[in-house]
Amino acid sequence: MENEEKKIYSAFETNIYVRPDDIDMNNHVHYSKYLDYLLTARYEQMKNNYGMSMEEFLERGYTWVASNINITYKRAIQLGDKVTVRAQITGAKGAQVFLNFWILKGENKKVAAEGNSIFTMISIKNGRPVRIPPDVLEKYSV
Amino acid sequence: MENEEKKIYSAFETNIYVRPDDIDMNNHVHYSKYLDYLLTARYEQMKNNYGMSMEEFLERGYTWVASNINITYKRAIQLGDKVTVRAQITGAKGAQVFLNFWILKGENKKVAAEGNSIFTMISIKNGRPVRIPPDVLEKYSV
Amino acid sequence: MENEEKKIYSAFETNIYVRPDDIDMNNHVHYSKYLDYLLTARYEQMKNNYGMSMEEFLERGYTWVASNINITYKRAIQLGDKVTVRAQITGAKGAQVFLNFWILKGENKKVAAEGNSIFTMISIKNGRPVRIPPDVLEKYSV
Amino acid sequence: MENEEKKIYSAFETNIYVRPDDIDMNNHVHYSKYLDYLLTARYEQMKNNYGMSMEEFLERGYTWVASNINITYKRAIQLGDKVTVRAQITGAKGAQVFLNFWILKGENKKVAAEGNSIFTMISIKNGRPVRIPPDVLEKYSV
Repeated sequence: MENEEKKIYSAFETNIYVRPDDIDMNNHVHYSKYLDYLLTARYEQMKNNYGMSMEEFLERGYTWVASNINITYKRAIQLGDKVTVRAQITGAKGAQVFLNFWILKGENKKVAAEGNSIFTMISIKNGRPVRIPPDVLEKYSV
Repeated sequence: MENEEKKIYSAFETNIYVRPDDIDMNNHVHYSKYLDYLLTARYEQMKNNYGMSMEEFLERGYTWVASNINITYKRAIQLGDKVTVRAQITGAKGAQVFLNFWILKGENKKVAAEGNSIFTMISIKNGRPVRIPPDVLEKYSV
Repeated sequence: MENEEKKIYSAFETNIYVRPDDIDMNNHVHYSKYLDYLLTARYEQMKNNYGMSMEEFLERGYTWVASNINITYKRAIQLGDKVTVRAQITGAKGAQVFLNFWILKGENKKVAAEGNSIFTMISIKNGRPVRIPPDVLEKYSV
Repeated sequence: MENEEKKIYSAFETNIYVRPDDIDMNNHVHYSKYLDYLLTARYEQMKNNYGMSMEEFLERGYTWVASNINITYKRAIQLGDKVTVRAQITGAKGAQVFLNFWILKGENKKVAAEGNSIFTMISIKNGRPVRIPPDVLEKYSV
């Protein structure tokens, strides 16, 4: 994936159910829960859209950790709101995958939050970053 | 510990710090967080009062899981409240430890919640209950 | 509802999605999250099955708090497991509703946890219990 | 605070206690919990270092929400680790406060995560941003 500047990756969407325990004293979804919604979408999309579930990574001795999250909050989410997480891989390099995301609200999918993130594949055994194998990169190139 | 009816065990107390993310839409500590406070106290007391930390259990191939929780909520806890968890082992049998607990609020330690619980020691490898070894029972007999 | 011993109430079921942030260091759903699953089902069933959503209670100046939870854990729930919460009102008295619940796992709905609970309706304004109004009791009598 | 480029603000530190429910399936503090640690520090420092607690903001009809978080994760935090959040206001403009933060680990305070954030003061009544009053700005100028 060295020469990837022009590659266009697909964006995928995952529905999220807002639970009562996600709501904080301000009567909206607590700001750290947005990261849990993002991670939920990531797991779902690994399984459904990229063809390699977290369980399969674990079986091969790998896991994923967050290295950077940059999130801008734009609209509050209330209990009962329909929430969709849209995520789009924008590239991969070494042990890292780059991901843009949008947390959308309501039927008309207004942007409640948006941002970008870097996730790193590490070895379960020693916790160190591992270069993403070619067959995984291949799966991520959709 | 078959013949233990008359044994009196010590009660121990652990201070808990209420975090903003513990507060729910009703502006008090969310009801499931009381269980997290109890577990925090349990870990602290394993280390400080019973002389065998969770880490040591893990090293020996054991972990603890909850088998039963019976909790009665009596007073709401707000952000800024001082919280103390008092816990007292009331007995042990096979793989299980029986524990009474009180979640206390404020300087005068009013009862915010109280209850009893059963925790079971299991093997990490196969998830099955393991009879608590005599040296651990010994430590719990304070 | 004074003379209600023989009344048989309906049981309702709500599907729960297990999120990655529900999983703890033992690689299964954390024990306090079962209470969050129960509350999620409660809210859903208030809206879908009893015809009065939490929002409607709030509008009338009421909210619900937990007064007692008795839960027995029987099987671990893993990420990817299908979870269903079945709940059945068993009676109501004064400000309180009594509820049995089962947290079910997998397609064959094995019991992962079961228990009973008491929820109390309170006034938002002063936090004190409020006798459940007849029209609400009527709705709960299904 | 228009002409504030050369102002140097103080950095403050808050100790955080890592709870068992903060640990995820990777056996380290879950990535969204870092935001909860940050918020805990923010509340503590509002009260202890800036002389105006969250409760006082609420009494005046204001609350704070996150508008942007940029966090880089550098080291995993395990149960039992000592955690300190250092935060430093870097400026304020309109309804917003800009904050750098470091989540530190161990006695030697290695950087587990670092980042910057924007928090916005809003009106509780209508949810809209409110220009930070001069007396609050004054308190933040330490």
